[in-house]
Amino acid sequence: MEQKGAEAKEAGARTYVTAIADRDEEISQWYTDVVLKAQLADYSPVRGCMIIRPYGYALWEQIQGELDRRFKATGVTNAYFPLFIPESMFMKEAEHVEGFAPEVAWVTHAGNEKLAERLVVRPTSEVIIGATYTKWIQSYRDLPVLINQWCNVVRWERRTLPFLRTTEFLWQEGHTAHRDEADARERTLLMLEVYRSFLEDHLAIPVVTGRKSNREKFAGAVDTYTTEALMGDGRALQTATSHYLGDGFAKVLDIQFLDQDGVHKHVHQTSWGLSTRVIGALIMVHGDERGLVLPPRVAPFQVIIVPIAPEPRRDEVFQAARDLAGQLADKGIRVHVDDRPEHTPGWKFNEWELRGVPLRLEIGPRDLDAGTVVLVRRDTGQKETVNMAEAVDSMPDRLDQLQAAIYAKAKAFLEEHTHFVTRRDQLAELVRARAGMILAPWCGADQCELAVKEETGATIRCIPDKGSEPEAGDRCVQCGQAARHRVYFARAY
Amino acid sequence: MEQKGAEAKEAGARTYVTAIADRDEEISQWYTDVVLKAQLADYSPVRGCMIIRPYGYALWEQIQGELDRRFKATGVTNAYFPLFIPESMFMKEAEHVEGFAPEVAWVTHAGNEKLAERLVVRPTSEVIIGATYTKWIQSYRDLPVLINQWCNVVRWERRTLPFLRTTEFLWQEGHTAHRDEADARERTLLMLEVYRSFLEDHLAIPVVTGRKSNREKFAGAVDTYTTEALMGDGRALQTATSHYLGDGFAKVLDIQFLDQDGVHKHVHQTSWGLSTRVIGALIMVHGDERGLVLPPRVAPFQVIIVPIAPEPRRDEVFQAARDLAGQLADKGIRVHVDDRPEHTPGWKFNEWELRGVPLRLEIGPRDLDAGTVVLVRRDTGQKETVNMAEAVDSMPDRLDQLQAAIYAKAKAFLEEHTHFVTRRDQLAELVRARAGMILAPWCGADQCELAVKEETGATIRCIPDKGSEPEAGDRCVQCGQAARHRVYFARAY
Repeated sequence: MEQKGAEAKEAGARTYVTAIADRDEEISQWYTDVVLKAQLADYSPVRGCMIIRPYGYALWEQIQGELDRRFKATGVTNAYFPLFIPESMFMKEAEHVEGFAPEVAWVTHAGNEKLAERLVVRPTSEVIIGATYTKWIQSYRDLPVLINQWCNVVRWERRTLPFLRTTEFLWQEGHTAHRDEADARERTLLMLEVYRSFLEDHLAIPVVTGRKSNREKFAGAVDTYTTEALMGDGRALQTATSHYLGDGFAKVLDIQFLDQDGVHKHVHQTSWGLSTRVIGALIMVHGDERGLVLPPRVAPFQVIIVPIAPEPRRDEVFQAARDLAGQLADKGIRVHVDDRPEHTPGWKFNEWELRGVPLRLEIGPRDLDAGTVVLVRRDTGQKETVNMAEAVDSMPDRLDQLQAAIYAKAKAFLEEHTHFVTRRDQLAELVRARAGMILAPWCGADQCELAVKEETGATIRCIPDKGSEPEAGDRCVQCGQAARHRVYFARAY
Repeated sequence: MEQKGAEAKEAGARTYVTAIADRDEEISQWYTDVVLKAQLADYSPVRGCMIIRPYGYALWEQIQGELDRRFKATGVTNAYFPLFIPESMFMKEAEHVEGFAPEVAWVTHAGNEKLAERLVVRPTSEVIIGATYTKWIQSYRDLPVLINQWCNVVRWERRTLPFLRTTEFLWQEGHTAHRDEADARERTLLMLEVYRSFLEDHLAIPVVTGRKSNREKFAGAVDTYTTEALMGDGRALQTATSHYLGDGFAKVLDIQFLDQDGVHKHVHQTSWGLSTRVIGALIMVHGDERGLVLPPRVAPFQVIIVPIAPEPRRDEVFQAARDLAGQLADKGIRVHVDDRPEHTPGWKFNEWELRGVPLRLEIGPRDLDAGTVVLVRRDTGQKETVNMAEAVDSMPDRLDQLQAAIYAKAKAFLEEHTHFVTRRDQLAELVRARAGMILAPWCGADQCELAVKEETGATIRCIPDKGSEPEAGDRCVQCGQAARHRVYFARAY
């Protein structure tokens, strides 16, 4: 009977890491396969909502920890505001309502009673936080207010994809209030830079930064700044945004302060956010035909140790693996020993490759005798036999090198998939070919932007910080009038 | 004009830390005053929901960080499950529904559309997590599953109080699945012990641990274990619970596994939680007539430095205060320099006492000349002048001593307010006098428990781990029949 159970399990185990779809042929299926089989997330019984599994959540904890440190270094503190927003309050800022009302969830009853006023489940918290600032801010000495919250938000999406677009998601939303426009604009750009450096240095995701067009900006913002990453399928992904809100919310919500000159003034505000969507970007940007490839700085396990331990030296090899893990942990490295008896080493290699662990160490009886260990890089597959003490000492450097290598690879991909065009047919052709980010001159008119979208499916991702100045003779790719900017077009998630 | 603004601010500032209500006379008002004036939380525009302000949230971050480390040390990992639960799923476990249905918020619409099925905003997640475990658990090798989530939950409360009872609150909920009852019961008690040691060692809150009566246990549990703390007003507060759920949810949700013996079996489960309510306990247990008193291990700022800096030596004193802070920070101490120019030192002393910072350092020109600093303990008010280098070196020990002292004080209070009675009139009298925890013999019948509650307002807080064995001749305090246990009665929050 015992044998039967074990066999059933073994059969289950073997089907557990099955082949994933071909990334070049069917990238959508490949993406879903990686999410599910690397156990990052799972579907839930609730339409459009996902379950973030422990491995995916550990990734989110790494992201949270680092980003939170970076926020706090700029003077931001965390707080927590209510999940629910009364309907009358939510309705105060007209553009904001127009942008969000079609996709909010409504609470109408509690227990068996109908509520006197319906409540919105927050899709974002500008209004409820702003209404609180009205109470907290009296004097110029109370400014700036620099608050962030880590929370869940809900937006009813028609088409959903794990991490990239879900009805409920986790994020952080920063909300600041300032004495004047200059200070608020400075904070907007500071947070854009915090996101850019975090994405590039920590997640190894190269981004284009810039300002959104009028059509694409946040509902209620004066200006929206964005970091745009390029996915493996040539589509762009907005990975973080930072909004200068002006004094629009302040006027509607009456957020005033007495300035040093004795005059009552409205505050100028910003808001900025990054969500679990970046986990989708990590998968798409770094993944390969064998699955996930995680940047060492954010990997829940930076090193996986697989003991290859036939009898009679099993205990000895397992002990050596644990000792090695201890030495790496002492260096601050996140390391895990896969000592599951029910799986073969080969099975484990496949699984941890699928799950994207940056470096693998294999240790067997012969290694033990020779004082060596086999080291395999996840990104290149490069395999070498290294002296054990040397492996421990060099591990931080090796992880740094791997981090740099996958950033360089992603950066090269972005550069290869960035094109400049001047004609509408070229633009349409490149979008069709999923060629990536397409820089093109634009006159600045909403209708030209809309026409491109309707014809090609591409939107303006941003008016880039660098290179948006039109050159003499630049004409709008759509209408042929004089161009005001060079902007990035792309299909987007 | 500038003067006018500054004056207005100063007037505002002076009223900011006004007297708080007398703790001995009006403890409820005192509690609310401390919550609001220490800026731990604020009321929100949403009925029964509070805003956790940065200082209160920093306290929650300290609690989270430490408790999360303790969970992980027992093998638990974090994950995230959906906020919403479909009505049909929520309705599966009858006792659970009976317990929670009267207080759940219902989402009925999204955008302009009515949903095909109503969604519950989670009041707790046994059902949705259990339904997921049905998918994840196949074999005995998949067990135990040890998962926790940090999240918000909603329970529609009629009467609310900041932290102690709010419609939305933050908490963690652990959900584990095991191969058999013994393993699940072991985990239930392990987590009870994690909570007990965290509450006593880290929050300096002494607790009574034990099992809930049938009437008071969690809706759907076989056994609920609790940690009960005693508040300054003689009322008990349930600070954490750990439930052995048996296989009830597993049978309803069909969570089965193939055991090693080839037989399909239902898992045995546990769940356990601790919420932002413990911040209410911290206030109530340690607070005094001057406001909050925070245990050093959990205080956002362990040491506050107030420079007393008249011209012309202002810059010199401020610099010395910052140097001192740097030296303390190097020792891992959370320290803050209050260098706000607009407040007097006396005003700052009051504010940081109200906000409960364990130790205050005052530094002025004479201290600078003498190489000393004035050190004031928040709990005792004890003031001494200490050599500056000695102050830095001794700070970790001083903080430990203060932590031990406030625990000892709370422990003595609990002991002084614990009584043993054998007669109903004694019990009623002690409850009326808000005398604390009242141990009394009980026959074990629901109706006796209910009768006591109706007559006195006291409930059975727990059947304690220690001292619940009845002695010969013990008779139920209510009905006079032979007693089965000695139990703690108290009025509770």
